[in-house]
Amino acid sequence: MKHTITFEPDKVSIRVDEGTNLLEAALEAGVHINASCGGQGVCGKCRVILEAGVVDSKKTQNISQEEYEQGWRQACQTFVRSDCTVKIPVESRGLKRVVAQKLDMGKADRKISALQTIPLAEGWQLEPMTIKVPVQLSPPTLKDNASDLTRLAMALKQQHHIDDLSVDIRCLRTMPQILRTSGWSVTATLMAGQEPKTISSLQDKTPTLKLVRLEPGDTSRQHLAVVLDIGTTTVCAELLDLKTGAVMAETAEYNRQAQHGEDVITRIVYAQEPKGRATLQSLVASSVNQVIDEALEQTGSLKKSIACIASAGNTTMTHLLLGLETRYIREAPYVPLASFMPLVWASDVGVDVPDCVQLFSFPSVASYVGGDIVSGILGSGVFQKKELTLYMDIGTNGEIVLGNRDWLACAACSMGPAFEGGGIQHGMRADQGAIEGFNINPVSLEPMVITVGRKKPRGICGSGLISVLAELLSACVIDRSGKFIHDLPSDRIRPGRFGHEYVLAWAEDSGTGHDIVITEVDIENLIRAKGALFAGCLTLLESLSLSFDDLDRVIIAGAFGRYINIEKGKRIGLFPDIPVEKFHFLGNGSLLGSRLLCLSRGMLGEIERIAKMMTHIELSDNQSFMDKYIGALFLPHTEDGFFPDVIRSLQANCRMICNERKIA
Amino acid sequence: MKHTITFEPDKVSIRVDEGTNLLEAALEAGVHINASCGGQGVCGKCRVILEAGVVDSKKTQNISQEEYEQGWRQACQTFVRSDCTVKIPVESRGLKRVVAQKLDMGKADRKISALQTIPLAEGWQLEPMTIKVPVQLSPPTLKDNASDLTRLAMALKQQHHIDDLSVDIRCLRTMPQILRTSGWSVTATLMAGQEPKTISSLQDKTPTLKLVRLEPGDTSRQHLAVVLDIGTTTVCAELLDLKTGAVMAETAEYNRQAQHGEDVITRIVYAQEPKGRATLQSLVASSVNQVIDEALEQTGSLKKSIACIASAGNTTMTHLLLGLETRYIREAPYVPLASFMPLVWASDVGVDVPDCVQLFSFPSVASYVGGDIVSGILGSGVFQKKELTLYMDIGTNGEIVLGNRDWLACAACSMGPAFEGGGIQHGMRADQGAIEGFNINPVSLEPMVITVGRKKPRGICGSGLISVLAELLSACVIDRSGKFIHDLPSDRIRPGRFGHEYVLAWAEDSGTGHDIVITEVDIENLIRAKGALFAGCLTLLESLSLSFDDLDRVIIAGAFGRYINIEKGKRIGLFPDIPVEKFHFLGNGSLLGSRLLCLSRGMLGEIERIAKMMTHIELSDNQSFMDKYIGALFLPHTEDGFFPDVIRSLQANCRMICNERKIA
Repeated sequence: MKHTITFEPDKVSIRVDEGTNLLEAALEAGVHINASCGGQGVCGKCRVILEAGVVDSKKTQNISQEEYEQGWRQACQTFVRSDCTVKIPVESRGLKRVVAQKLDMGKADRKISALQTIPLAEGWQLEPMTIKVPVQLSPPTLKDNASDLTRLAMALKQQHHIDDLSVDIRCLRTMPQILRTSGWSVTATLMAGQEPKTISSLQDKTPTLKLVRLEPGDTSRQHLAVVLDIGTTTVCAELLDLKTGAVMAETAEYNRQAQHGEDVITRIVYAQEPKGRATLQSLVASSVNQVIDEALEQTGSLKKSIACIASAGNTTMTHLLLGLETRYIREAPYVPLASFMPLVWASDVGVDVPDCVQLFSFPSVASYVGGDIVSGILGSGVFQKKELTLYMDIGTNGEIVLGNRDWLACAACSMGPAFEGGGIQHGMRADQGAIEGFNINPVSLEPMVITVGRKKPRGICGSGLISVLAELLSACVIDRSGKFIHDLPSDRIRPGRFGHEYVLAWAEDSGTGHDIVITEVDIENLIRAKGALFAGCLTLLESLSLSFDDLDRVIIAGAFGRYINIEKGKRIGLFPDIPVEKFHFLGNGSLLGSRLLCLSRGMLGEIERIAKMMTHIELSDNQSFMDKYIGALFLPHTEDGFFPDVIRSLQANCRMICNERKIA
Repeated sequence: MKHTITFEPDKVSIRVDEGTNLLEAALEAGVHINASCGGQGVCGKCRVILEAGVVDSKKTQNISQEEYEQGWRQACQTFVRSDCTVKIPVESRGLKRVVAQKLDMGKADRKISALQTIPLAEGWQLEPMTIKVPVQLSPPTLKDNASDLTRLAMALKQQHHIDDLSVDIRCLRTMPQILRTSGWSVTATLMAGQEPKTISSLQDKTPTLKLVRLEPGDTSRQHLAVVLDIGTTTVCAELLDLKTGAVMAETAEYNRQAQHGEDVITRIVYAQEPKGRATLQSLVASSVNQVIDEALEQTGSLKKSIACIASAGNTTMTHLLLGLETRYIREAPYVPLASFMPLVWASDVGVDVPDCVQLFSFPSVASYVGGDIVSGILGSGVFQKKELTLYMDIGTNGEIVLGNRDWLACAACSMGPAFEGGGIQHGMRADQGAIEGFNINPVSLEPMVITVGRKKPRGICGSGLISVLAELLSACVIDRSGKFIHDLPSDRIRPGRFGHEYVLAWAEDSGTGHDIVITEVDIENLIRAKGALFAGCLTLLESLSLSFDDLDRVIIAGAFGRYINIEKGKRIGLFPDIPVEKFHFLGNGSLLGSRLLCLSRGMLGEIERIAKMMTHIELSDNQSFMDKYIGALFLPHTEDGFFPDVIRSLQANCRMICNERKIA
């Protein structure tokens, strides 16, 4: 059920789902309401007056009984039950015309938000990577005394048309006992997928099946897969129900390797120290164990129900998870040990799952274009479409793929962990309490912050950082080089240890007991990161004699919060200045492709095809890239010509704000 | 070069190779010469007179200078260099007419001896199970920075047309270092053979190749395989040079599991005790290590040159080597865990070889028809011929295959370890000092013994036991029930702890310092063993409405000494009484087939085809078999009709001997 909310006095309307939170609706509509506590209901700044309609909204201590009866509510504690008209009182609201001007962006974002559910690649069906089937054997007799394994194989053939079976020795070790104690009624788990080949194609081959586990009774309904995205900064997992294809849980944790360096280069250096590689291997395995355990706990699932793991990550992370040498990834000419990795037993690399679980690693393309990108291209179906697509994965490395169903080119640039919250004073992952949405009143300079889970703010995640940077820029709080304007009349802007800083949340409103700030040094890091990505995209396009205008689609992948805002990303020069309709937001593309593989083993061949199809353009030692990078270290860019629409609206904003500030 | 030796006064001739030992030539010709020390030259009983021809023969202390000048020589110290005439003086020789009568047998044996080199199965070529090739990589550059593995795979494709390659993770772990320290010049070892499948056929598939090892430089000339025959009593190994196909060494040791029981049943019982299975696994692995180490030592080869291992054994031994449950092999309805075993890493089952070596196990057919039989059928080509063949493998179990290129049936019967020397007081393997040839003077009852390596006798091996039993029978020393005739005038026949016994070698002639004897209990064991085998053959034939006369060929496999004597085997009822020309002696058939596979990976499909083609006839709980077994507990059999020729010559012999004894 949908309802229309109209915000007074600006008469801005937005259609939202039944039960939508009013503060979130305002953020999406581009309507500013002061809010300091991230939506937890404690700062009491987001007071609004319900003029018409039905909402769920308890009286809070910030509202008197009399006010409550007059219609006063706290927006962050209000959930919409009908069409509503909501008036924002002057003390809660921002600047009228700026709000109006930003509305379009809000609408566009709404559309993009919906695109999070971008359809998966086409042509797949639910035929999971592992098969788990109940099977009933007739007990042996003197006349029919075939071996246990032959008996099982015959039954699988007769009852499930499963043929061409091999068996793992570990499974044999327990087979006789299980068959007999279960009364010859068991559940067999079979893993699809021959060993990935290094050169030749899997295309025309049906993956063979290997019997990896036998359990007594019928456990075929407990059939889970784990998909992993091993990032330099973050390790993400999804728990999949292979019976239904549903995603049961998503979890993420910092990669514990981070204690030995923030980026892949420092990790590789550490790996060369004595026992360094083994240490990093064991640390990433422990992070994997943590995300798996959390996903199991969230869903009350049992570890023994896990039947397979598909993992994608950048090339270095993939090597380190398997305990392989990474040294030559770092040294020119930047050579990984292997692109296609063999299947391994997950328990052999320290992943704490039953020893019958195999781990599939997505193949990488080059030292800095990893399996996560191959997985994203698989999941998003870029390789199947005739439209020219630019695929950007924003993480510690920015990885870029350009192409369509006929060709694929890729490149990678080092962005650093800034957009994942790394190297940012109050940066954090998109976890509970992370500021993911941000707005600013350009006159009062009061913020509107919305956090993940509407908890008291604890830090700022990727989408929040984009918003903060874009809002500070368009509210003329920072200039286009990222420096704070010093003479603004707000104690939220102040000198700090790392240059000037803006206070997003005061200590009393924050979840940490400390002020949450963004500093000039943070902003420099963000500018370098977005500059590298933009320069990478431009270099890749130019190397193929293309420009941004030739793009039919841009797909943004990366572990952002829900409120990634394309318009704001364009405003800071992170995304190209092309029509917002061309943008699609994928979320974690790496998980998406891995999920697809686990659900549909037929994708094994496509994965190989994608990895082999991608032409890699090396950006290291590439002078053209370096020049473009330097040019991009400005908001949005030193050359206005790359961002005509952004520059136009920034200039209009700036004029309005200067006027308003003079009035104030 | 061939020479003719004529033995006087009987004028028996035999053609032998240049350099043949004169005592061995006499044994083969069926000419008795007394010899107590096995051929070592110390007993001095085998004195002969060289009447014509050239020999190498040093004067020994048993011959005076005068005698030497007159032509006296010790036969066991004499090697033939031209056609010769040799006179056997009365004190050295046996009974004229019996000798003459046995001559035919000797000739036939000679022919069968030559058949030890029975051609292998047809249609194979030297394409070893592992490929070991030198490969030269171009170092990576910024323009060509494919991964190490891709680079290697491309080079293998270009330089050796090797495609469709997978890789083992262990090999990846050392790859970068090896490539770089070797200056990109390495040797790759690739293992052929996808995992054996349980039901479907491999026939139409080319085995895929897995990269298992990389070594610096060119080591492709050091390319060895080990083939193993894992018997209940004996573990045999061959070391193969895969470069040339040559057998470099053959070694054998008792299976150390024997300390926990002589036959498979007692092993299985022991395996059910706590830690029993692990103990047996580790004992057989240590026996395997011993035979491998001996083979390496004999040839001065390095362990690291071993590239693959093919192992065949009976079903229980195959299970135990892989550490698998054997309990249900013993309990009705006698079900093995698996017929087709997966490839395993040899080091994972305790075989002390480099960890890149995979171990292939021959598939078994039933609980008591193992991979050793499948291997023998492969090696001997029974499955390729239109002739009806009876294949008998004589070990602790007697395993019998009947069939041709269109069909194969098989059965197994428990013989016990008697013909391998187990359960026989002075039984031993066909090792240095084992009596492998035996003859008796029916009047003086003096023996002629020849030992392996012509060392002082230390015991009696399988072929020796057949000879001893047959000779004692035809010399009327034992009766047809296997009991000693008590009133014979020789101190070599005497009562002992295990009934009466015959002394083959006195303590002073023996290598142990004790008398070497055969006892009535030994003879009972041998009769039970041969009875089971004969009953098994008869049951298998009758179940297919066939008789011994329908057979085109009989192939005898088993670890006997060189002098296995078909006629003597027939005389004791071990082999059927059909023309000796139909017999072929294969030696260790299990090793033969394993050798063939290691030399020719294309045989993988044939192995699967053979194993699936064999129909198993269960002899346990088979009343017809039990009846036939009881009937066979006599020498040669209770029913004379099964052995008409043997009975005829036994009776003729007996009459002659009685006459001679009366004369004496």
